[in-house]
Formats: sequence, C-alpha cells, structure tokens
Amino acid sequence: MSVTILKGNIVSAPALGKLDITEHGYLAAEDGVIAGVFDCLPERFASAPVEDWGECLILQSFADLHLHAPQYPMMGMGMDLPLLEWLDTYAFPAEAQFADPDYARDVYRRLAHDLIAGGTTRVCLFSSLHRPATLILMEELEKAGVTGFVGKVNMDRSGGAGLRETTEESMRETLLWLDACGDFTHVRPILTPRFTPACTDELMAFLGALARERNLPVQSHLSENRQEIELVRRLCPACGQYWETYARYGLWTDRTLMAHCVHSDARERRAMRDTGVTAVHCASSNNAICSGVAPVRVMLDEGLKVALGTDVAGGCSLRMFDAVADTVKASKDRRILDSWQTNFLTVAEGWYLGTTAGAKFFGAGNGFAPGDRLHALVLDDGELAAPARPLTVRERFERCVYVRQPDAIRAVWSDGRRVFG
Amino acid sequence: MSVTILKGNIVSAPALGKLDITEHGYLAAEDGVIAGVFDCLPERFASAPVEDWGECLILQSFADLHLHAPQYPMMGMGMDLPLLEWLDTYAFPAEAQFADPDYARDVYRRLAHDLIAGGTTRVCLFSSLHRPATLILMEELEKAGVTGFVGKVNMDRSGGAGLRETTEESMRETLLWLDACGDFTHVRPILTPRFTPACTDELMAFLGALARERNLPVQSHLSENRQEIELVRRLCPACGQYWETYARYGLWTDRTLMAHCVHSDARERRAMRDTGVTAVHCASSNNAICSGVAPVRVMLDEGLKVALGTDVAGGCSLRMFDAVADTVKASKDRRILDSWQTNFLTVAEGWYLGTTAGAKFFGAGNGFAPGDRLHALVLDDGELAAPARPLTVRERFERCVYVRQPDAIRAVWSDGRRVFG
Repeated sequence: MSVTILKGNIVSAPALGKLDITEHGYLAAEDGVIAGVFDCLPERFASAPVEDWGECLILQSFADLHLHAPQYPMMGMGMDLPLLEWLDTYAFPAEAQFADPDYARDVYRRLAHDLIAGGTTRVCLFSSLHRPATLILMEELEKAGVTGFVGKVNMDRSGGAGLRETTEESMRETLLWLDACGDFTHVRPILTPRFTPACTDELMAFLGALARERNLPVQSHLSENRQEIELVRRLCPACGQYWETYARYGLWTDRTLMAHCVHSDARERRAMRDTGVTAVHCASSNNAICSGVAPVRVMLDEGLKVALGTDVAGGCSLRMFDAVADTVKASKDRRILDSWQTNFLTVAEGWYLGTTAGAKFFGAGNGFAPGDRLHALVLDDGELAAPARPLTVRERFERCVYVRQPDAIRAVWSDGRRVFG
Repeated sequence: MSVTILKGNIVSAPALGKLDITEHGYLAAEDGVIAGVFDCLPERFASAPVEDWGECLILQSFADLHLHAPQYPMMGMGMDLPLLEWLDTYAFPAEAQFADPDYARDVYRRLAHDLIAGGTTRVCLFSSLHRPATLILMEELEKAGVTGFVGKVNMDRSGGAGLRETTEESMRETLLWLDACGDFTHVRPILTPRFTPACTDELMAFLGALARERNLPVQSHLSENRQEIELVRRLCPACGQYWETYARYGLWTDRTLMAHCVHSDARERRAMRDTGVTAVHCASSNNAICSGVAPVRVMLDEGLKVALGTDVAGGCSLRMFDAVADTVKASKDRRILDSWQTNFLTVAEGWYLGTTAGAKFFGAGNGFAPGDRLHALVLDDGELAAPARPLTVRERFERCVYVRQPDAIRAVWSDGRRVFG
C-alpha cells in the first residue's frame, strides 16, 4: 500500500460557511484514498514518509463545472458584446477551428496543463461538436491528470459557417463518440445539448432517451440572458418555462448541470430543487456578457444544489481562485441590487461552492472526507508583503482567494496521484 | 540630447472611448519628452538606436489616484466586513505599525517596486499619520521611479489605539513634513484630511488655509458608504451634503481628488463638475466593502473628471490592469442595477480612465502626447494560448486587460526614464 502524508496548515470546507482548519496538521491518504486529517500523526503511519510543507496551506483542489474548452484561446476578447452577438462573432468561429485535430491537440494539451497548474482537478467541459477533437480533449485531460466529464456538443440548428451538423449527423457522431469513450478511466462522457436555441426537438428527444438508456449525466445552459430566454419562448411556445424544454425530453434529472440560471424565477428554481438539478454559477461571464447577477444566496437558502464554473471564454479567467472571488464579489453586487437586503457570500462560502459543492457532482464527500480520493493542492504565500503581526491561517486562507504570489501553487494531487509540482 | 525610440504595436487612449493604434510603429522621445508616434521613423531620428520590441504592445503606463500605502500588507484580508468595522479591525491597526521606520522602509520599498513592476508610474497615495514614515514612503517611491503625490494623513478624531494625533500635533507634524518635502523631485506633497469623520473643524480649517497659502492639492474620501454618509450628517449638521464639509474650508478646488463618490447625487456631482474636482473611482473596494456601484457613466456624461484608484487595501489588487477590468465590470453591474438603461464602459473607455484621465491630474496631455514626459510600458503576450487566426492589435489590447502571461510587463518608463526591465 502506498501512503501519502502531507504536513502543513490544512484548510477545508466541509459545509457551506464552515472551515476546518488544522494548523501544522497531517493529511494522510492510503493508495490515493483519504484516511483523514490529524493534529498528530496516528501510530499506524509512524513509519511513513512525511512531506513537510512547512507554513504552506494545504487546500482542497477545485471543481470547475462549466467551461468551453475550445473557447480557451479566445479568453478575454469580445467582452464588449452581448451574448448572442458574442457567440456569432467569437465563440462559434473559434469552435469551428476544432475540425483540425492538430490544432485541437495543441490547444487542449495547453488547457489541460493550465487547469492542473491552477489547481483544478475536476471538470465538466463542453467540447465542440467535433468527435475527433472531443476525444483528443479527453486524452489530454487524462494525461495531465484532470478528472471529470467532457461532452461532445450537440447543435443542429445554430452555429454559423463551419460549425454545423445535421440532426442525423449529430446523433450518429454522438453514438460513435460514446463508443470510443470506453478507453478512458478518469474522464467520462456527459451529454451536452448546447442549449435549447441550438437543438431541434428531434435531437433533444434522442439525447433524452440516450441519457436514460445509458444512465448518462447531462449539461447545458439555462436562463442566462433575457434575449436568450425570449428566443426560447418563441422557439418552444408549448413550454411554460425554459427548464421545461429540457424536462420534457428527460434531460432534467439529478445528474443534470445547468449553467447560469441568472433569471430563473421561483418556479424554475423549485423545479431545480425538486429534481436535484445543479445550478452552475458563472459569476465572471454573467457580468462580462452583462447577463445579470444570479441570486445565489436565495438559491442556497431554498436548498438548491449550486456549484461554480469559470465559463471560459464568456468568463475571462481559467483560475478557480478567481471564480471563487468573483462569486463573492457577485454576491455583493446582488446585495446592492437587492437594496442591501440579501447577505453576500463570505469567502468561506464561496470556497465551499468552488470545491466541495462541485466535487459532490462526482460523488465526493465533505471537505477532505475519509474515503474520498485525494484531490488537493499546496499553496505557498511566504513571499507576499508581510504584515507586522503574524497572520492567522484563516486570514491567510481568505487572502489567497484575492492575492497570490507568482507560482503560488507548489503541488497538486488529483484522484490520489500527484500531478503537479 | 538622449533619444529613446521604441518600436512595436503602439496603443494609446487620447480620448474617452478612442484608441490610437500604430502597428509596428515608433514611439520617440528626446531627453525623456515624447516627440511623437510615427508609422515611419522621421529623418531626424535616422541615426538613433531603435529598441525593437517586435510584436509586443507598447502602452501608456498607469495612474493610480487612490491607494493607502500602509494598508498594502493587509491586502485581501477582512473583505467580509463593512467599511467602518473593517477600518477598526484591519486598516487602523495596520497603519499604527508605521510608527516603526524600519518596518515602513521594508513595506514601502516593496510597494514602490511592485507599483513599477505592475506598470503604475503615477500615483496619489495616502500614507499614515506618521511624518517619518511618510518621508520614507516618498524616498522609496523616488528611488523606484514612481512619480506623483503623497500625503501625510491628518486624523485628529478617530483611529483607535496607537493611531491618534491631537489637533495640535496634526498641524505641527504637517508643517514639519511639508518643510522636509523640498528634497524630492518626482514625488510632491498633497494635503490629506483622511475623511470628514476623522478630522475636527479646526483641523479642516487649518488644512484649507494651508492649501490656499501654499497652493497644494488635496485628496480625501467622499460619499463612499451609506453609514459613513449618515455619520457625516450627524457630525456636521450645518452642511447640507457631505461635499460641503470640505468646501466650506477651502478643500474643494480643481486640484482636489475625492475617492469613491458612490452615493454622490446630482447636486453633489454638479458641485464636483462646476469646481473641477476629480472623482476617483475605486471599483474593487466599492464592491469588496459592499459600498455600492458608482454611476461612472452618468458622471462622464455630466462632464465630471473621473480617474481610477486601486484603493488598496479596501481594493484587493495593486494592479491597474485589474482596476481597469474592475471598472468595466462595475459598469456592467451598474447597467444591470439600472435595469439595462445605462451603457457599460468599454475596455477602451476603462483604459482611458486608468491612463490619460489620471495623468491629466499631473498636467499630462492626451495619450502619448508630444511634449509630455514619457510614461510607458511594454507588454508581451506571445506566450498566451494562440487562436487559429491572427489577432488584431486591438483584440490583443482588449485581452491584456483581462488576461496576461506571467511577467507580461517587459519594461517600464516613468518621467522619461527607464525604471524597469
């Protein structure tokens, strides 16, 4: 049995708003499975080698539950455009390039490396509609040590020049893609109807049946932008609300991720809660594309499952540290928008959403839960400007969400394996 | 005569929303004074050495018009607290440490270096109330190549343990400090009543007279937070509005900077415009301390002077790239808050506010104006993930506000001198 013992200041978020802090403690794993966090090393580990990280923080690694892999090279551009125009001008042409497997290989290798280097070890990614590029993405993620789900995008009624598939092509390519996914161990397929405006009813029905038959999870977009919602209303007059365009085809289950949910009202939110659909909050892109400010505090109070996504490249940072900070910031904007009547999210709450809450979609427990596979990172803040008094570990933890030194992440473990540093 | 010729992709913001872009152009300076930006190098420079920066962007350096130097070591902490509580718990105790000159030297040397390394060459800084530490700050800025204004803070009625001065001490120390400022060439004094709640009428009257007699600029805070405004109302019942607490003592002139102005209403904004007071927008801290979202678009439409400040450590980044991005983001929040009725600020507009608009407080012209001292930086983005098509310089410029590679800033010039890289 291989044993990993990490010594340092261990911080995890076992519940919303709660932090477990063990100063100069030990995080132990056996064959990649967490044994526990300890103040003193238990006797049975007495002969195991200890990696002593000194004053460094040992933190949960991140789960990024919404990200468009082929848009990574366009990150930070076109941010002055609204959603539908931005899709046509930037996102769709960028995705069309992934017909080229060599280009896909280059971009996805870079992306997979950058995810790990940034401490993101669990993901749910949108690929493009291209089957070969999607498989390349899965390969590169596996190689780099990223775990999670990847979806070949289905889109048979939008996309523009160079980014089209017929309904029949979309179905056939999806089946071929699923057949080819058996080789992967850490990256699994997730059905990915782009969003209702991009998928015909026939395609939606096909994907819903497939989800049921093969017990597959589903990811898509919901109620991001007011123009988009209006478009869905025109396209699907039979559905009372946007979520019903997914639900009526069996795409609305407790293994469904819905990105954004900015404008989801009480009824739509209730449908999410009752079914166990996870709302993936994308604070950066909601602001960048001027969609609105999602009512995350209300969602949490109502008992919805909420996790975080960077939403690259509607969002403009791949770093989940930024996604956590942006979530806290957006909750403050929401508080202002609500005339200071709703509470903002604290850093500890934002951190929980970016780690434990996301990890639950993959079956993980709370914080560094014994029995979970080890997903962790080591963060060094020893080179930051030093205050005159010693900082508490909690203060240093809070600071790292906003301020980090270059190369702050010293090491990363994913699914029990050391994958960085 | 010494000649500097920089070759690269030159971008500047000569007016709000306007960009001058010269691809593979030449930025020429003679004895540190800008001669012009040229497509082809004029004959008179034919024998001068050219620094060829290849595909790099050559940009204006930044002006940070509001920043609390002694709070730098606390950056990123206490962000879950409201303003007045945050001041008592974090800001004031942090500032009290600057009674120790050795500590001040360490922090301010670091700060000055980090400002330059981040491309900020013009500043208006709050020091603490300590005269020796304030002079140390000025020394360290001069050494590093930062130009601008620094203020010994005046505060004779708040601050807590270890951070108090009597009215008499505040006056005496201010005069002694001003006497000692004659040695500096690039950093000049600015009168700095902390804010109305921290200064007695007697002290305000003294500072107003001093500003007039010695023709000194003034910086302070205005209408940042609703509790603060209520406090000012109670403290100064004779004044109809917050701004009048400065105006009645002669602290309200066209050389006055007022940070925040989040809740300044039409009447207060008119008073700013009519006098030529500059509103310093601090997007990051306005959000972090949950103060509100300043109506910057309205201010600009009304003809107010607006510049940007990082407001470290209410703000949680020293980088003016972030201040520009945060300004754009805040304007999108403001648009949402205004039910999508006000336009957000484009990247080009945010950039103008962080560069040209701030530089005007120091007498500079528009963009890379001939006759101005050279303030510039070279930015490399060649290592970022590459899209399949060539990007325009404008796209790369827009991206750099949101996304930069490590060590993206290759060189910085301040007041005609190369100070970094």
